[in-house]
Amino acid sequence: MEYFFYDDYSEGAHPKILEALSCSNLEQERGYGEDTISTQAIKLIKQKIGNPNVAIHFVSSGMQANVITLISMLRHHESVITPETAHINLDEAGAIEAGGHKINAVQTPNGKLTSADIEDVLARNSGEHKVKPRVVAVAQATEWGTIYSKEELQALSNCCKKNNLYFYIDGARLGSALTAKNADITLLELSQLADAFYIGGTKNGALLGEAIVVSNPELQKDFRYHIKQRGALLAKGRVLGIQFAELFKDDLFFDLARHANVMAERLKEAISIKGFSFLSDSTTNQIFPILPNTHIEKLKKDYGFHPYGFNPWPKAEITEDTSAIRLVTSWATTEEAVNTFIADFNNLT
Amino acid sequence: MEYFFYDDYSEGAHPKILEALSCSNLEQERGYGEDTISTQAIKLIKQKIGNPNVAIHFVSSGMQANVITLISMLRHHESVITPETAHINLDEAGAIEAGGHKINAVQTPNGKLTSADIEDVLARNSGEHKVKPRVVAVAQATEWGTIYSKEELQALSNCCKKNNLYFYIDGARLGSALTAKNADITLLELSQLADAFYIGGTKNGALLGEAIVVSNPELQKDFRYHIKQRGALLAKGRVLGIQFAELFKDDLFFDLARHANVMAERLKEAISIKGFSFLSDSTTNQIFPILPNTHIEKLKKDYGFHPYGFNPWPKAEITEDTSAIRLVTSWATTEEAVNTFIADFNNLT
Amino acid sequence: MEYFFYDDYSEGAHPKILEALSCSNLEQERGYGEDTISTQAIKLIKQKIGNPNVAIHFVSSGMQANVITLISMLRHHESVITPETAHINLDEAGAIEAGGHKINAVQTPNGKLTSADIEDVLARNSGEHKVKPRVVAVAQATEWGTIYSKEELQALSNCCKKNNLYFYIDGARLGSALTAKNADITLLELSQLADAFYIGGTKNGALLGEAIVVSNPELQKDFRYHIKQRGALLAKGRVLGIQFAELFKDDLFFDLARHANVMAERLKEAISIKGFSFLSDSTTNQIFPILPNTHIEKLKKDYGFHPYGFNPWPKAEITEDTSAIRLVTSWATTEEAVNTFIADFNNLT
Amino acid sequence: MEYFFYDDYSEGAHPKILEALSCSNLEQERGYGEDTISTQAIKLIKQKIGNPNVAIHFVSSGMQANVITLISMLRHHESVITPETAHINLDEAGAIEAGGHKINAVQTPNGKLTSADIEDVLARNSGEHKVKPRVVAVAQATEWGTIYSKEELQALSNCCKKNNLYFYIDGARLGSALTAKNADITLLELSQLADAFYIGGTKNGALLGEAIVVSNPELQKDFRYHIKQRGALLAKGRVLGIQFAELFKDDLFFDLARHANVMAERLKEAISIKGFSFLSDSTTNQIFPILPNTHIEKLKKDYGFHPYGFNPWPKAEITEDTSAIRLVTSWATTEEAVNTFIADFNNLT
Repeated sequence: MEYFFYDDYSEGAHPKILEALSCSNLEQERGYGEDTISTQAIKLIKQKIGNPNVAIHFVSSGMQANVITLISMLRHHESVITPETAHINLDEAGAIEAGGHKINAVQTPNGKLTSADIEDVLARNSGEHKVKPRVVAVAQATEWGTIYSKEELQALSNCCKKNNLYFYIDGARLGSALTAKNADITLLELSQLADAFYIGGTKNGALLGEAIVVSNPELQKDFRYHIKQRGALLAKGRVLGIQFAELFKDDLFFDLARHANVMAERLKEAISIKGFSFLSDSTTNQIFPILPNTHIEKLKKDYGFHPYGFNPWPKAEITEDTSAIRLVTSWATTEEAVNTFIADFNNLT
Repeated sequence: MEYFFYDDYSEGAHPKILEALSCSNLEQERGYGEDTISTQAIKLIKQKIGNPNVAIHFVSSGMQANVITLISMLRHHESVITPETAHINLDEAGAIEAGGHKINAVQTPNGKLTSADIEDVLARNSGEHKVKPRVVAVAQATEWGTIYSKEELQALSNCCKKNNLYFYIDGARLGSALTAKNADITLLELSQLADAFYIGGTKNGALLGEAIVVSNPELQKDFRYHIKQRGALLAKGRVLGIQFAELFKDDLFFDLARHANVMAERLKEAISIKGFSFLSDSTTNQIFPILPNTHIEKLKKDYGFHPYGFNPWPKAEITEDTSAIRLVTSWATTEEAVNTFIADFNNLT
Repeated sequence: MEYFFYDDYSEGAHPKILEALSCSNLEQERGYGEDTISTQAIKLIKQKIGNPNVAIHFVSSGMQANVITLISMLRHHESVITPETAHINLDEAGAIEAGGHKINAVQTPNGKLTSADIEDVLARNSGEHKVKPRVVAVAQATEWGTIYSKEELQALSNCCKKNNLYFYIDGARLGSALTAKNADITLLELSQLADAFYIGGTKNGALLGEAIVVSNPELQKDFRYHIKQRGALLAKGRVLGIQFAELFKDDLFFDLARHANVMAERLKEAISIKGFSFLSDSTTNQIFPILPNTHIEKLKKDYGFHPYGFNPWPKAEITEDTSAIRLVTSWATTEEAVNTFIADFNNLT
Repeated sequence: MEYFFYDDYSEGAHPKILEALSCSNLEQERGYGEDTISTQAIKLIKQKIGNPNVAIHFVSSGMQANVITLISMLRHHESVITPETAHINLDEAGAIEAGGHKINAVQTPNGKLTSADIEDVLARNSGEHKVKPRVVAVAQATEWGTIYSKEELQALSNCCKKNNLYFYIDGARLGSALTAKNADITLLELSQLADAFYIGGTKNGALLGEAIVVSNPELQKDFRYHIKQRGALLAKGRVLGIQFAELFKDDLFFDLARHANVMAERLKEAISIKGFSFLSDSTTNQIFPILPNTHIEKLKKDYGFHPYGFNPWPKAEITEDTSAIRLVTSWATTEEAVNTFIADFNNLT
């Protein structure tokens, strides 16, 4: 039977989360996130961050977190600077633009943005014939599986402050980034460097749910209006709160992410040993090996995975004979599946 | 301890639904609603409707269902005709307008729209200085707890067809409407009269989830683009599919709704017997009794409920001494709670 | 031959304006409103206002002035409070909503808004399930030809300040309002009471052009972005500057408006004397007499005019036998035309 | 005194146009473009095109023409494919995005789009996680002063038809393109290849005004709604009609454009002879010579011009010592000015 390395949302939720949903199921609670469990979850996350001054809101999907938070930051004439490969630019069906805002997409060699990129966009967008850049958005981990170092995020944050830009971090895979072997930044530091970011639950053990963390006080005001207006204020908000309470009451959130990383690292090592290279030096739960097309065809019989960037296969072609694929592990990836994949991979000829 | 008659989303999900979530939890499935269980749920709902030609999509909230379906129907210059009291007009934070469209809100005596209302809006909106009405949207059940008869819906549908308007039905509480004692319309007939409607799950036993039913073939094309662009395409779409499969594999959906109606009816009878009147002749799970303010103050000690229309209390004032309140029952309302309420009510002096 | 009382834009421009366009025609100037003549026009208007701290921008149409200024005031979740009969609500093709914002339209007996209306909208729109009102917009003169007194505008302004709302005045017919016989407010006072307003040129002698006056410093920043983004930054901005320089270098703007008012007043008197009443007590250049349908049919042979509110004729019906019509005079209305109309009117039987 | 080669809108209108405005000035006409002169102008343009089936509408600016026509073509989930250097992408303050639509901007070597570019965008944008490309927009002449040949436009048109895309041509400088020495396409052919395009007046002798030509019948319906909703339906629409009637009653439109091209060509020859190269092989009224910075500094004392692309000077740097500038001629550029520039240029050392 086929095993999926398609993504980190192929399974349901971590069993503890399902259990937690059952436990409080028939207790009556207020709607729209004003229940006692969501309140408790927010308290737990603030403690884990170590910053009592942030505001926290739960929404259902990473895309909702992105759109709502960015829209809340923008006046009509303002825009978002982000790498060309960003999820908000390529994979959200034009939602930012549907919300009325241009994205200043920057071509970058590795999916990571630098202060020089920001300065360049600002230099080329001056005066009312252009949009006015107002937010810088990056993802941690990036869409290439790499992470920004603390130093890099500090530099971006400084550049934003200097230029009166908000700094936003898409944390769909933040757990994976925080527990990567080369990670050097904490939730507390993130809350100090970014005006807002989110902690992804869907891709790290929840059924669904992301926790938006708003650090900048001027953005905290009226935030729930944007959640509601974009259709993300769930009647049974408890569903999100319960899951995050479970993820953050101990260290479940981090443990699950670490497991996904370890699984990815084992795949990466096995592929590297065979002499194959990768599109990016990922240390998180997505890896992008470049393999002979013949290998890929054989692997596809037993394993599910996407070509790089969800492009049609020819586009992921690196040379005539090789292509990049994306292998994703998750909290639910079994050691057995990884072992079997490695064994099969080693047998490829 | 306080018992909530605030709304129909004070509890979690029906236990069978939680069980179903657990059963398939670790099975790997494709993302974004393309899983086998969502496919199965769609098949079950089509069978229940008895119309194989509809398209069905799951989203997380009624507001998402409303916004996505209406936006999918509209070009930039077009508008929506709806009663002034409609949820999309009063309680969705201006989402339709944020999507770029004016609502032609019609003052109606009882929250229900008529063909004459539609014709009047069309007469007053002709030519390019006005918006161009393109959709008529009504709720079944209405925000006042009443329902449209088949004859009334047929008349609205005819009027729409005659005037080249789409007809859309907000079914947040469709279960309750279909099982009301005076109900005379079937899912099949709804699918024939409306271009699109949705079947509400959140308010009828699901954790979250609504099933949008698109009958009109020209609206079926590209529908998933709108779901995605509005942030409603869940990565773990299975979460919605599993719940609807459970609701529709037998008659759970209808049984739950009927229970809510019966509970509301018992409350209504008890209040009527005491000689009090109601804002509307509701036959579904929301009732709006007009009570002496002194009664209301006493009831508030033991029961949770909203003033009519979520307005601040003075606004729900009917006379100086009486106000309207909203009592909502649900699939989870216990007979015991209803009995206790009635006993307490009868003891009020 | 038919004489038009349809509107105040049936002719071209005042001859002095055409002359001014010719005079500077071949001088080279910078584009986009940064020409020397626009700069001069701005200086002249500021002098006439007597407030050097306002910012002034020229756009082509009243609708552009409305949309641009309102959009510049609003974040995504915010709305505009205005009378139901306001031009921005009824006659601008849903442009505010196309820009993403709901209009809280208030039913008023005479097209004029009061502080009580504002407070009522605020009371009914509290919390994130509603939009957040942010601007109050009224027209001076109103769409019914009446004007707000200084006291009324002061009260509205106070109410806005108290509730953190911007106050905006649509001045499509501001000239007419300022020169009405019952006018008691100056441009200076307007600039102190309103956060922004505009001085209409199109309906008062210009070929096209309105001068937006922004008093509130926080709205002055970035204003040109909104002009550009809404397509209103003319390459040959001089065209607008030249006209306003001409209108404001002496008192042409006021003289033209006064003429229009006088012409309307003469019509009004003649109709009153005959015992007919009016929809509103207009003192500006639009009057709304209620006439026997037989009179209207006869007048239509020689004169062009609209039924009240541009509605199809039956809608302007007041009783079975009478209807309201709109007669509009302008800077270009000749005394001869007015005399002839009155004579013809007096001969009606 | 400084002579401007900044742009083609530094002067007013051709004297014949001012004269025409005067001639009909006091005749009463209906508003909003429904006057007799606009009707006549439309008739004249249709005759010049030779295609009676197009619909023609006048708006004030090229940006309005672009935004209105593109918005009229798009449903909410659809996008526009255009070269990265397109005016709609770089120089319209994000108006298309403010209207809700993503631009798929294509990097091209010379500002011109090819069928291969379109196919590539389509290949990378498939499925609902992406926007759905719906329109291809190019400019004739391009922002680089070059023109598409008939063969090139035919290829683009074919590619659009094959892929169910609308084809739109931004004709801000269409006159210049049609009268270029290498021009090989007619207005009739344009109306057959494109679903819509516009004929620019502002940059070719009008005070302001563009004529949108809509060929595709399905786009003709409801077009005035979009003009109105975007604030471009002028009350005194006659102002636009009068100008276009004058431009098209004889061949004034073409004569003016040809003059601009000839003036540009003389500048280009003089600069070429001196051994300098150009950013593009322009045959229209904009040329982009690459000159020593020392030359540029000297020229700036007597002549007004922009660096390439309106970028701050360093960005137009080609090498350390040379930069590209933009010289624009127009209908109003005098032979004397060109002669003087050439003489001065020849004297530079």
